Amino acid sequence: MTDTFRSVDVTRIEDGRRAVERDRAATEEPLEIRLHGRPFAVIMRTPGADRELAAGFLLAERVLRSADDLGTIEYCEDPAHDHPQNIVNVTLVGSAVTTLEQVLAERRQVATSSSCGLCGRLSIDSIRVDVPAVASDLTLTASLVLAMPERLRRAQMVFDETGGLHAAALFTRDGQLEDSAEDVGRHNAVDKVVGRRVMREELPLSDRALFVSGRSSFEIVQKALFAGIPIVASVSAPSTLAIELASESGITLVGFVRGERFNIYSHPERVR
Amino acid sequence: MTDTFRSVDVTRIEDGRRAVERDRAATEEPLEIRLHGRPFAVIMRTPGADRELAAGFLLAERVLRSADDLGTIEYCEDPAHDHPQNIVNVTLVGSAVTTLEQVLAERRQVATSSSCGLCGRLSIDSIRVDVPAVASDLTLTASLVLAMPERLRRAQMVFDETGGLHAAALFTRDGQLEDSAEDVGRHNAVDKVVGRRVMREELPLSDRALFVSGRSSFEIVQKALFAGIPIVASVSAPSTLAIELASESGITLVGFVRGERFNIYSHPERVR
Repeated sequence: MTDTFRSVDVTRIEDGRRAVERDRAATEEPLEIRLHGRPFAVIMRTPGADRELAAGFLLAERVLRSADDLGTIEYCEDPAHDHPQNIVNVTLVGSAVTTLEQVLAERRQVATSSSCGLCGRLSIDSIRVDVPAVASDLTLTASLVLAMPERLRRAQMVFDETGGLHAAALFTRDGQLEDSAEDVGRHNAVDKVVGRRVMREELPLSDRALFVSGRSSFEIVQKALFAGIPIVASVSAPSTLAIELASESGITLVGFVRGERFNIYSHPERVR
Repeated sequence: MTDTFRSVDVTRIEDGRRAVERDRAATEEPLEIRLHGRPFAVIMRTPGADRELAAGFLLAERVLRSADDLGTIEYCEDPAHDHPQNIVNVTLVGSAVTTLEQVLAERRQVATSSSCGLCGRLSIDSIRVDVPAVASDLTLTASLVLAMPERLRRAQMVFDETGGLHAAALFTRDGQLEDSAEDVGRHNAVDKVVGRRVMREELPLSDRALFVSGRSSFEIVQKALFAGIPIVASVSAPSTLAIELASESGITLVGFVRGERFNIYSHPERVR
Protein backbone atom coordinates (compact mmCIF):
# COMPACT_ATOMS: atom_id res chain seq x y z
CA MET A 1 0.00 0.00 0.00
CA THR A 2 3.02 2.27 0.19
CA ASP A 3 4.05 1.93 -3.45
CA THR A 4 5.24 5.19 -4.94
CA PHE A 5 3.68 4.20 -8.25
CA ARG A 6 0.76 1.97 -9.12
CA SER A 7 -0.15 0.21 -12.35
CA VAL A 8 -3.07 1.66 -14.27
CA ASP A 9 -4.78 0.92 -17.58
CA VAL A 10 -4.36 3.64 -20.17
CA THR A 11 -5.64 4.13 -23.68
CA ARG A 12 -2.59 5.36 -25.56
CA ILE A 13 -3.11 7.50 -28.65
CA GLU A 14 0.03 7.83 -30.75
CA ASP A 15 0.42 8.82 -34.39
CA GLY A 16 -3.25 8.05 -34.97
CA ARG A 17 -3.08 4.57 -33.40
CA ARG A 18 -5.09 3.62 -30.32
CA ALA A 19 -4.04 0.88 -27.90
CA VAL A 20 -4.88 -0.13 -24.35
CA GLU A 21 -1.72 -0.60 -22.29
CA ARG A 22 -0.53 -0.84 -18.72
CA ASP A 23 1.26 2.22 -17.40
CA ARG A 24 2.10 3.55 -13.97
CA ALA A 25 0.90 6.60 -12.08
CA ALA A 26 2.29 8.32 -8.99
CA THR A 27 0.38 7.29 -5.89
CA GLU A 28 -1.60 10.03 -4.15
CA GLU A 29 -3.43 9.43 -0.88
CA PRO A 30 -4.57 11.70 1.96
CA LEU A 31 -2.56 11.78 5.18
CA GLU A 32 -4.40 12.99 8.25
CA ILE A 33 -2.11 14.51 10.86
CA ARG A 34 -3.46 14.50 14.41
CA LEU A 35 -2.09 16.37 17.39
CA HIS A 36 -2.66 14.51 20.63
CA GLY A 37 -5.45 12.60 18.90
CA ARG A 38 -7.22 15.67 17.53
CA PRO A 39 -7.48 16.25 13.75
CA PHE A 40 -5.07 18.99 12.70
CA ALA A 41 -4.56 18.77 8.93
CA VAL A 42 -5.13 16.60 5.88
CA ILE A 43 -2.34 16.55 3.29
CA MET A 44 -2.50 14.90 -0.13
CA ARG A 45 0.77 13.01 -0.42
CA THR A 46 2.60 10.04 -1.91
CA PRO A 47 2.77 7.39 0.85
CA GLY A 48 6.19 6.81 2.37
CA ALA A 49 8.19 8.74 4.98
CA ASP A 50 4.85 9.78 6.50
CA ARG A 51 6.24 10.36 9.99
CA GLU A 52 9.01 12.50 8.48
CA LEU A 53 6.39 14.38 6.46
CA ALA A 54 4.40 15.06 9.61
CA ALA A 55 7.49 16.32 11.46
CA GLY A 56 8.51 18.60 8.59
CA PHE A 57 4.97 19.86 8.11
CA LEU A 58 4.60 20.70 11.80
CA LEU A 59 7.96 22.50 11.73
CA ALA A 60 6.77 24.62 8.80
CA GLU A 61 3.49 25.26 10.65
CA ARG A 62 5.50 26.43 13.68
CA VAL A 63 3.83 23.83 15.88
CA LEU A 64 7.33 22.42 16.34
CA ARG A 65 10.12 24.95 16.79
CA SER A 66 12.79 22.28 17.25
CA ALA A 67 13.22 18.59 17.92
CA ASP A 68 12.90 19.37 21.64
CA ASP A 69 9.17 19.95 21.10
CA LEU A 70 8.60 16.53 19.52
CA GLY A 71 7.35 13.60 21.60
CA THR A 72 6.16 10.72 19.43
CA ILE A 73 4.89 10.26 15.87
CA GLU A 74 2.93 7.05 15.41
CA TYR A 75 0.56 5.59 12.86
CA CYS A 76 -3.03 5.26 13.97
CA GLU A 77 -3.79 1.93 15.64
CA ASP A 78 -7.51 2.43 15.89
CA PRO A 79 -9.16 -0.59 14.17
CA ALA A 80 -12.22 1.55 13.51
CA HIS A 81 -10.40 3.24 10.65
CA ASP A 82 -10.36 1.72 7.18
CA HIS A 83 -7.00 3.26 6.33
CA PRO A 84 -4.92 3.56 9.51
CA GLN A 85 -1.80 3.87 7.35
CA ASN A 86 -3.15 7.26 6.28
CA ILE A 87 -3.35 8.70 9.80
CA VAL A 88 -0.44 9.70 12.03
CA ASN A 89 -0.76 11.00 15.57
CA VAL A 90 1.86 13.40 16.90
CA THR A 91 2.47 14.21 20.56
CA LEU A 92 4.39 17.23 21.75
CA VAL A 93 6.51 17.64 24.86
CA GLY A 94 7.73 20.50 27.01
CA SER A 95 6.71 24.04 26.21
CA ALA A 96 5.07 22.96 22.93
CA VAL A 97 2.39 21.13 24.95
CA THR A 98 1.53 24.28 26.84
CA THR A 99 0.94 26.10 23.54
CA LEU A 100 -1.09 23.24 22.01
CA GLU A 101 -4.46 24.70 22.89
CA GLN A 102 -3.40 28.08 21.58
CA VAL A 103 -2.11 26.53 18.33
CA LEU A 104 -5.39 24.71 17.76
CA ALA A 105 -7.43 27.79 18.68
CA GLU A 106 -5.47 30.04 16.31
CA ARG A 107 -5.96 27.60 13.46
CA ARG A 108 -9.66 27.54 14.21
CA GLN A 109 -9.96 31.30 13.83
CA VAL A 110 -9.43 31.03 10.11
CA ALA A 111 -8.47 28.25 7.80
CA THR A 112 -6.02 29.09 5.06
CA SER A 113 -4.76 27.17 2.12
CA SER A 114 -2.94 27.31 -1.17
CA SER A 115 -6.24 26.74 -2.92
CA CYS A 116 -6.01 23.02 -2.54
CA GLY A 117 -9.65 22.10 -2.77
CA LEU A 118 -9.56 20.15 0.46
CA CYS A 119 -9.68 22.93 2.99
CA GLY A 120 -12.35 22.60 5.59
CA ARG A 121 -12.59 18.85 5.29
CA LEU A 122 -12.71 17.32 8.72
CA SER A 123 -10.83 14.15 8.00
CA ILE A 124 -9.80 11.79 5.25
CA ASP A 125 -13.25 10.21 5.43
CA SER A 126 -14.77 13.45 4.22
CA ILE A 127 -12.61 14.31 1.22
CA ARG A 128 -14.79 12.19 -1.06
CA VAL A 129 -17.17 14.49 -2.80
CA ASP A 130 -20.94 14.33 -2.61
CA VAL A 131 -21.84 15.57 -6.06
CA PRO A 132 -23.32 13.55 -8.93
CA ALA A 133 -21.13 12.40 -11.81
CA VAL A 134 -20.70 14.77 -14.73
CA ALA A 135 -23.46 14.42 -17.33
CA SER A 136 -22.33 15.39 -20.81
CA ASP A 137 -22.35 14.12 -24.38
CA LEU A 138 -19.20 16.08 -25.22
CA THR A 139 -16.65 14.32 -27.40
CA LEU A 140 -13.43 15.65 -28.93
CA THR A 141 -11.33 14.32 -31.77
CA ALA A 142 -7.78 13.26 -30.95
CA SER A 143 -6.43 16.02 -33.18
CA LEU A 144 -8.22 18.70 -31.14
CA VAL A 145 -6.67 17.30 -27.97
CA LEU A 146 -3.22 17.28 -29.59
CA ALA A 147 -3.66 20.93 -30.60
CA MET A 148 -4.40 22.16 -27.06
CA PRO A 149 -0.83 22.82 -25.83
CA GLU A 150 0.07 24.95 -28.84
CA ARG A 151 -3.23 26.86 -28.74
CA LEU A 152 -2.70 27.64 -25.07
CA ARG A 153 0.88 28.75 -25.77
CA ARG A 154 -0.29 31.13 -28.51
CA ALA A 155 -3.01 32.60 -26.30
CA GLN A 156 -0.71 33.39 -23.40
CA MET A 157 1.32 36.54 -23.76
CA VAL A 158 3.75 35.48 -21.10
CA PHE A 159 3.23 31.75 -20.99
CA ASP A 160 6.54 30.08 -20.43
CA GLU A 161 6.60 26.34 -20.04
CA THR A 162 10.03 26.34 -18.51
CA GLY A 163 9.45 29.30 -16.26
CA GLY A 164 7.49 30.36 -13.27
CA LEU A 165 3.85 30.19 -14.30
CA HIS A 166 1.20 27.53 -14.59
CA ALA A 167 -1.67 27.96 -17.02
CA ALA A 168 -5.19 26.61 -17.39
CA ALA A 169 -7.62 26.98 -20.31
CA LEU A 170 -11.17 26.13 -21.33
CA PHE A 171 -11.72 24.68 -24.80
CA THR A 172 -15.02 24.51 -26.67
CA ARG A 173 -16.53 21.52 -28.45
CA ASP A 174 -14.84 22.55 -31.71
CA GLY A 175 -11.43 22.96 -30.07
CA GLN A 176 -11.38 26.75 -29.74
CA LEU A 177 -9.59 28.18 -26.74
CA GLU A 178 -12.27 30.18 -24.98
CA ASP A 179 -10.44 31.45 -21.92
CA SER A 180 -7.15 31.00 -20.10
CA ALA A 181 -5.38 32.11 -16.94
CA GLU A 182 -1.86 32.03 -15.54
CA ASP A 183 -0.68 31.78 -11.97
CA VAL A 184 2.25 30.64 -9.85
CA GLY A 185 -0.26 28.13 -8.48
CA ARG A 186 -1.67 25.37 -10.66
CA HIS A 187 -4.88 25.26 -8.64
CA ASN A 188 -5.27 29.03 -8.85
CA ALA A 189 -5.10 29.02 -12.66
CA VAL A 190 -7.99 26.53 -12.73
CA ASP A 191 -9.97 28.52 -10.14
CA LYS A 192 -9.55 31.67 -12.25
CA VAL A 193 -10.98 30.20 -15.47
CA VAL A 194 -13.77 28.37 -13.63
CA GLY A 195 -14.50 31.36 -11.40
CA ARG A 196 -15.04 33.60 -14.41
CA ARG A 197 -17.78 31.21 -15.59
CA VAL A 198 -19.33 31.18 -12.12
CA MET A 199 -19.53 34.97 -12.20
CA ARG A 200 -21.17 34.76 -15.66
CA GLU A 201 -23.65 32.16 -14.39
CA GLU A 202 -22.46 29.66 -17.00
CA LEU A 203 -22.16 26.52 -14.86
CA PRO A 204 -22.26 23.59 -15.40
CA LEU A 205 -19.57 23.65 -18.10
CA SER A 206 -20.81 20.39 -19.65
CA ASP A 207 -19.53 21.21 -23.12
CA ARG A 208 -16.09 22.47 -22.19
CA ALA A 209 -12.73 20.74 -21.79
CA LEU A 210 -10.21 21.92 -19.20
CA PHE A 211 -6.52 21.92 -20.12
CA VAL A 212 -3.80 22.46 -17.50
CA SER A 213 -0.07 22.95 -17.94
CA GLY A 214 1.01 20.85 -14.96
CA ARG A 215 0.11 17.58 -13.32
CA SER A 216 -3.46 16.45 -12.71
CA SER A 217 -3.96 15.82 -9.01
CA PHE A 218 -7.08 14.79 -7.11
CA GLU A 219 -7.80 18.44 -6.43
CA ILE A 220 -7.67 19.48 -10.10
CA VAL A 221 -10.17 16.76 -11.03
CA GLN A 222 -12.32 17.74 -8.05
CA LYS A 223 -12.43 21.35 -9.26
CA ALA A 224 -13.49 20.14 -12.72
CA LEU A 225 -16.20 17.96 -11.18
CA PHE A 226 -17.66 20.84 -9.17
CA ALA A 227 -17.78 22.89 -12.38
CA GLY A 228 -19.36 20.03 -14.35
CA ILE A 229 -16.44 19.78 -16.82
CA PRO A 230 -16.40 16.37 -18.58
CA ILE A 231 -12.84 16.38 -20.03
CA VAL A 232 -9.59 17.26 -18.19
CA ALA A 233 -6.33 17.19 -20.15
CA SER A 234 -2.77 18.00 -19.17
CA VAL A 235 0.74 17.99 -20.57
CA SER A 236 1.93 16.00 -17.58
CA ALA A 237 0.99 13.03 -15.43
CA PRO A 238 -2.10 12.36 -13.33
CA SER A 239 -1.97 10.85 -9.83
CA THR A 240 -3.70 7.61 -8.85
CA LEU A 241 -6.36 9.45 -6.87
CA ALA A 242 -7.03 11.82 -9.77
CA ILE A 243 -7.64 8.78 -11.99
CA GLU A 244 -9.93 7.17 -9.41
CA LEU A 245 -12.01 10.32 -8.94
CA ALA A 246 -12.25 10.90 -12.69
CA SER A 247 -13.37 7.29 -13.27
CA GLU A 248 -16.05 7.51 -10.59
CA SER A 249 -17.21 10.96 -11.69
CA GLY A 250 -17.69 10.37 -15.40
CA ILE A 251 -14.72 12.58 -16.29
CA THR A 252 -12.36 11.80 -19.17
CA LEU A 253 -8.83 12.27 -17.85
CA VAL A 254 -6.08 12.80 -20.43
CA GLY A 255 -2.36 13.13 -19.68
CA PHE A 256 1.00 13.59 -21.37
CA VAL A 257 -0.38 15.58 -24.32
CA ARG A 258 2.93 16.01 -26.16
CA GLY A 259 3.82 15.99 -29.82
CA GLU A 260 1.65 13.39 -31.54
CA ARG A 261 0.63 11.39 -28.51
CA PHE A 262 -1.36 11.35 -25.28
CA ASN A 263 -2.77 8.91 -22.75
CA ILE A 264 -6.40 8.55 -21.64
CA TYR A 265 -6.81 7.35 -18.05
CA SER A 266 -10.60 7.24 -17.72
CA HIS A 267 -13.71 7.31 -19.92
CA PRO A 268 -11.83 7.11 -23.24
CA GLU A 269 -15.13 7.08 -25.15
CA ARG A 270 -15.15 10.89 -25.18
CA VAL A 271 -12.08 11.00 -27.46
CA ARG A 272 -12.87 10.06 -31.05
CA MET B 1 1.08 46.31 -9.04
CA THR B 2 -0.73 43.61 -10.98
CA ASP B 3 2.14 42.70 -13.26
CA THR B 4 2.38 38.99 -13.91
CA PHE B 5 6.14 39.28 -13.95
CA ARG B 6 8.56 41.70 -12.28
CA SER B 7 12.14 42.60 -13.08
CA VAL B 8 14.77 41.23 -10.74
CA ASP B 9 18.57 41.33 -10.57
CA VAL B 10 20.21 37.96 -11.08
CA THR B 11 23.78 36.74 -11.02
CA ARG B 12 24.01 34.48 -14.05
CA ILE B 13 26.59 31.70 -14.05
CA GLU B 14 27.13 30.20 -17.49
CA ASP B 15 30.04 28.16 -18.81
CA GLY B 16 32.19 29.42 -15.96
CA ARG B 17 31.38 33.11 -16.54
CA ARG B 18 29.62 35.24 -13.95
CA ALA B 19 27.54 38.30 -14.83
CA VAL B 20 24.88 40.42 -13.13
CA GLU B 21 21.83 40.84 -15.37
CA ARG B 22 18.20 41.86 -15.24
CA ASP B 23 15.70 39.00 -15.52
CA ARG B 24 12.06 38.57 -14.72
CA ALA B 25 10.26 36.46 -12.12
CA ALA B 26 6.62 35.46 -11.79
CA THR B 27 4.80 37.66 -9.30
CA GLU B 28 3.54 35.95 -6.16
CA GLU B 29 1.47 37.79 -3.56
CA PRO B 30 -1.03 36.69 -0.92
CA LEU B 31 -4.75 37.13 -1.56
CA GLU B 32 -6.98 37.20 1.50
CA ILE B 33 -10.53 36.08 0.78
CA ARG B 34 -13.15 37.34 3.21
CA LEU B 35 -16.73 36.16 3.55
CA HIS B 36 -19.04 38.95 4.65
CA GLY B 37 -16.01 40.77 6.01
CA ARG B 38 -14.62 37.83 7.97
CA PRO B 39 -11.27 36.26 7.08
CA PHE B 40 -11.82 32.94 5.33
CA ALA B 41 -8.62 31.99 3.49
CA VAL B 42 -5.24 33.28 2.33
CA ILE B 43 -4.04 32.06 -1.07
CA MET B 44 -0.60 32.68 -2.57
CA ARG B 45 -1.30 33.75 -6.13
CA THR B 46 -0.17 35.79 -9.13
CA PRO B 47 -2.20 39.03 -9.08
CA GLY B 48 -4.84 39.36 -11.78
CA ALA B 49 -8.37 37.91 -12.09
CA ASP B 50 -8.57 37.98 -8.30
CA ARG B 51 -12.35 38.15 -8.16
CA GLU B 52 -12.52 35.21 -10.56
CA LEU B 53 -10.01 33.35 -8.38
CA ALA B 54 -12.15 33.98 -5.31
CA ALA B 55 -15.29 32.74 -7.09
CA GLY B 56 -13.57 29.59 -8.35
CA PHE B 57 -11.93 28.93 -4.99
CA LEU B 58 -15.25 29.24 -3.14
CA LEU B 59 -16.90 26.91 -5.66
CA ALA B 60 -14.18 24.31 -5.02
CA GLU B 61 -14.63 24.84 -1.27
CA ARG B 62 -18.37 24.22 -1.68
CA VAL B 63 -19.17 27.61 -0.15
CA LEU B 64 -20.74 28.40 -3.53
CA ARG B 65 -22.76 25.64 -5.15
CA SER B 66 -23.75 27.78 -8.12
CA ALA B 67 -23.84 31.36 -9.33
CA ASP B 68 -27.18 31.72 -7.53
CA ASP B 69 -25.29 31.74 -4.23
CA LEU B 70 -23.00 34.61 -5.23
CA GLY B 71 -23.80 38.18 -4.22
CA THR B 72 -20.84 40.50 -4.72
CA ILE B 73 -17.05 40.17 -4.95
CA GLU B 74 -15.25 43.43 -4.27
CA TYR B 75 -11.74 44.52 -3.44
CA CYS B 76 -11.19 45.84 0.08
CA GLU B 77 -11.76 49.58 0.38
CA ASP B 78 -10.56 49.88 3.94
CA PRO B 79 -7.80 52.56 3.94
CA ALA B 80 -6.33 50.92 7.06
CA HIS B 81 -4.84 48.19 4.91
CA ASP B 82 -1.47 48.61 3.25
CA HIS B 83 -2.36 46.31 0.38
CA PRO B 84 -6.11 46.52 -0.28
CA GLN B 85 -5.51 45.03 -3.72
CA ASN B 86 -4.65 41.79 -1.94
CA ILE B 87 -7.98 41.48 -0.13
CA VAL B 88 -11.34 40.62 -1.67
CA ASN B 89 -14.62 40.45 0.20
CA VAL B 90 -17.34 38.08 -0.99
CA THR B 91 -20.99 38.23 -0.05
CA LEU B 92 -23.40 35.35 -0.49
CA VAL B 93 -27.12 35.46 -1.20
CA GLY B 94 -30.10 33.17 -0.74
CA SER B 95 -29.63 29.80 0.92
CA ALA B 96 -25.84 30.22 0.94
CA VAL B 97 -26.21 33.00 3.52
CA THR B 98 -28.14 30.74 5.84
CA THR B 99 -25.30 28.20 5.73
CA LEU B 100 -22.57 30.82 6.20
CA GLU B 101 -22.26 30.32 9.95
CA GLN B 102 -22.16 26.57 9.48
CA VAL B 103 -19.49 26.88 6.76
CA LEU B 104 -17.30 29.03 8.99
CA ALA B 105 -17.89 26.77 12.00
CA GLU B 106 -16.98 23.62 10.05
CA ARG B 107 -13.78 25.21 8.82
CA ARG B 108 -12.92 26.13 12.37
CA GLN B 109 -13.17 22.55 13.54
CA VAL B 110 -10.02 21.66 11.68
CA ALA B 111 -7.82 23.45 9.24
CA THR B 112 -6.45 21.42 6.37
CA SER B 113 -3.97 22.18 3.68
CA SER B 114 -1.79 20.78 0.94
CA SER B 115 1.22 21.45 3.13
CA CYS B 116 1.50 25.00 1.97
CA GLY B 117 3.36 26.47 4.93
CA LEU B 118 0.81 29.21 5.39
CA CYS B 119 -1.91 27.33 7.18
CA GLY B 120 -3.11 28.86 10.37
CA ARG B 121 -2.06 32.35 9.41
CA LEU B 122 -4.83 34.77 10.29
CA SER B 123 -4.37 37.20 7.48
CA ILE B 124 -1.90 38.49 4.94
CA ASP B 125 -0.38 40.67 7.64
CA SER B 126 0.75 37.58 9.49
CA ILE B 127 2.40 35.52 6.75
CA ARG B 128 5.73 37.23 7.30
CA VAL B 129 7.84 35.02 9.48
CA ASP B 130 9.23 35.94 12.87
CA VAL B 131 12.46 33.98 12.82
CA PRO B 132 16.01 35.36 12.57
CA ALA B 133 17.90 35.21 9.29
CA VAL B 134 19.91 32.09 8.56
CA ALA B 135 23.43 32.22 10.02
CA SER B 136 25.91 30.11 8.09
CA ASP B 137 29.35 30.29 6.50
CA LEU B 138 28.44 27.61 3.95
CA THR B 139 29.68 28.17 0.41
CA LEU B 140 29.50 25.89 -2.62
CA THR B 141 31.42 25.93 -5.87
CA ALA B 142 29.44 26.51 -9.06
CA SER B 143 30.38 23.03 -10.26
CA LEU B 144 28.79 21.43 -7.20
CA VAL B 145 25.58 23.35 -7.86
CA LEU B 146 25.62 22.26 -11.51
CA ALA B 147 26.02 18.61 -10.44
CA MET B 148 22.92 18.60 -8.20
CA PRO B 149 20.25 17.64 -10.76
CA GLU B 150 22.18 14.61 -12.03
CA ARG B 151 23.08 13.48 -8.49
CA LEU B 152 19.43 13.67 -7.49
CA ARG B 153 18.40 11.75 -10.59
CA ARG B 154 20.88 8.98 -9.82
CA ALA B 155 19.73 8.72 -6.22
CA GLN B 156 16.06 8.35 -7.03
CA MET B 157 14.96 4.89 -8.05
CA VAL B 158 11.78 6.17 -9.60
CA PHE B 159 12.59 9.81 -10.19
CA ASP B 160 11.02 10.90 -13.42
CA GLU B 161 11.39 14.49 -14.44
CA THR B 162 8.59 14.29 -16.95
CA GLY B 163 6.27 12.28 -14.79
CA GLY B 164 4.20 12.50 -11.69
CA LEU B 165 6.65 13.08 -8.87
CA HIS B 166 8.49 16.00 -7.36
CA ALA B 167 11.75 15.46 -5.52
CA ALA B 168 13.77 17.28 -2.87
CA ALA B 169 17.28 16.57 -1.62
CA LEU B 170 19.80 17.74 0.95
CA PHE B 171 23.41 18.23 -0.16
CA THR B 172 26.46 18.47 2.10
CA ARG B 173 29.22 21.08 1.98
CA ASP B 174 31.25 18.88 -0.37
CA GLY B 175 28.33 18.32 -2.71
CA GLN B 176 27.29 14.84 -1.58
CA LEU B 177 23.61 14.01 -1.74
CA GLU B 178 22.76 13.11 1.83
CA ASP B 179 19.04 12.44 1.62
CA SER B 180 16.17 12.75 -0.82
CA ALA B 181 12.41 12.26 -0.99
CA GLU B 182 9.75 12.09 -3.68
CA ASP B 183 6.11 13.09 -3.58
CA VAL B 184 3.24 14.22 -5.77
CA GLY B 185 3.52 17.44 -3.76
CA ARG B 186 6.54 19.69 -4.04
CA HIS B 187 6.06 20.96 -0.50
CA ASN B 188 5.69 17.43 0.83
CA ALA B 189 9.04 16.32 -0.64
CA VAL B 190 10.74 19.19 1.22
CA ASP B 191 8.86 18.42 4.45
CA LYS B 192 9.98 14.80 4.24
CA VAL B 193 13.72 15.54 3.99
CA VAL B 194 13.55 18.30 6.59
CA GLY B 195 11.29 16.24 8.86
CA ARG B 196 13.78 13.39 8.93
CA ARG B 197 16.40 15.84 10.32
CA VAL B 198 13.93 17.12 12.88
CA MET B 199 13.37 13.57 14.11
CA ARG B 200 17.16 13.10 14.33
CA GLU B 201 17.53 16.37 16.24
CA GLU B 202 19.86 17.76 13.57
CA LEU B 203 18.42 21.26 13.15
CA PRO B 204 19.49 23.89 12.21
CA LEU B 205 20.80 22.57 8.89
CA SER B 206 23.29 25.43 8.55
CA ASP B 207 25.74 23.44 6.43
CA ARG B 208 23.25 21.88 4.03
CA ALA B 209 21.85 22.98 0.67
CA LEU B 210 18.29 22.12 -0.35
CA PHE B 211 17.62 21.18 -3.95
CA VAL B 212 14.06 20.89 -5.33
CA SER B 213 12.84 19.59 -8.68
CA GLY B 214 10.14 22.22 -9.18
CA ARG B 215 9.65 25.93 -8.76
CA SER B 216 10.75 27.83 -5.68
CA SER B 217 7.77 29.56 -4.11
CA PHE B 218 7.55 31.65 -0.95
CA GLU B 219 6.54 28.55 0.95
CA ILE B 220 9.57 26.50 -0.14
CA VAL B 221 11.94 29.27 1.00
CA GLN B 222 9.96 29.60 4.24
CA LYS B 223 10.40 25.88 4.93
CA ALA B 224 14.16 26.24 4.34
CA LEU B 225 14.29 29.23 6.67
CA PHE B 226 12.55 27.36 9.50
CA ALA B 227 15.09 24.55 9.07
CA GLY B 228 18.03 27.00 8.98
CA ILE B 229 19.11 25.97 5.45
CA PRO B 230 21.30 28.68 3.82
CA ILE B 231 21.14 27.60 0.14
CA VAL B 232 18.02 26.67 -1.86
CA ALA B 233 18.45 25.58 -5.49
CA SER B 234 15.97 24.42 -8.09
CA VAL B 235 15.79 23.38 -11.73
CA SER B 236 13.02 25.87 -12.30
CA ALA B 237 12.03 29.47 -11.57
CA PRO B 238 11.52 31.26 -8.25
CA SER B 239 8.63 33.63 -7.58
CA THR B 240 9.07 37.28 -6.62
CA LEU B 241 8.03 36.61 -3.03
CA ALA B 242 10.46 33.69 -2.77
CA ILE B 243 13.26 36.02 -3.85
CA GLU B 244 12.19 38.71 -1.36
CA LEU B 245 12.01 36.29 1.54
CA ALA B 246 15.36 34.71 0.63
CA SER B 247 17.00 38.15 0.41
CA GLU B 248 15.65 39.19 3.80
CA SER B 249 16.47 35.87 5.43
CA GLY B 250 20.08 35.46 4.38
CA ILE B 251 19.27 32.57 2.06
CA THR B 252 21.04 32.07 -1.27
CA LEU B 253 18.33 31.32 -3.84
CA VAL B 254 19.42 29.58 -7.04
CA GLY B 255 17.17 28.80 -10.02
CA PHE B 256 17.24 27.24 -13.48
CA VAL B 257 20.08 24.80 -12.71
CA ARG B 258 20.30 23.26 -16.18
CA GLY B 259 23.21 22.07 -18.25
CA GLU B 260 26.14 24.43 -17.66
CA ARG B 261 24.19 27.37 -16.24
CA PHE B 262 22.13 28.67 -13.36
CA ASN B 263 20.88 31.97 -11.90
CA ILE B 264 21.44 33.30 -8.38
CA TYR B 265 18.61 35.51 -7.11
CA SER B 266 19.89 36.41 -3.63
CA HIS B 267 23.10 36.32 -1.60
CA PRO B 268 25.35 35.22 -4.49
CA GLU B 269 28.40 35.32 -2.22
CA ARG B 270 27.72 31.75 -1.14
CA VAL B 271 28.50 30.42 -4.63
CA ARG B 272 32.22 30.44 -5.44
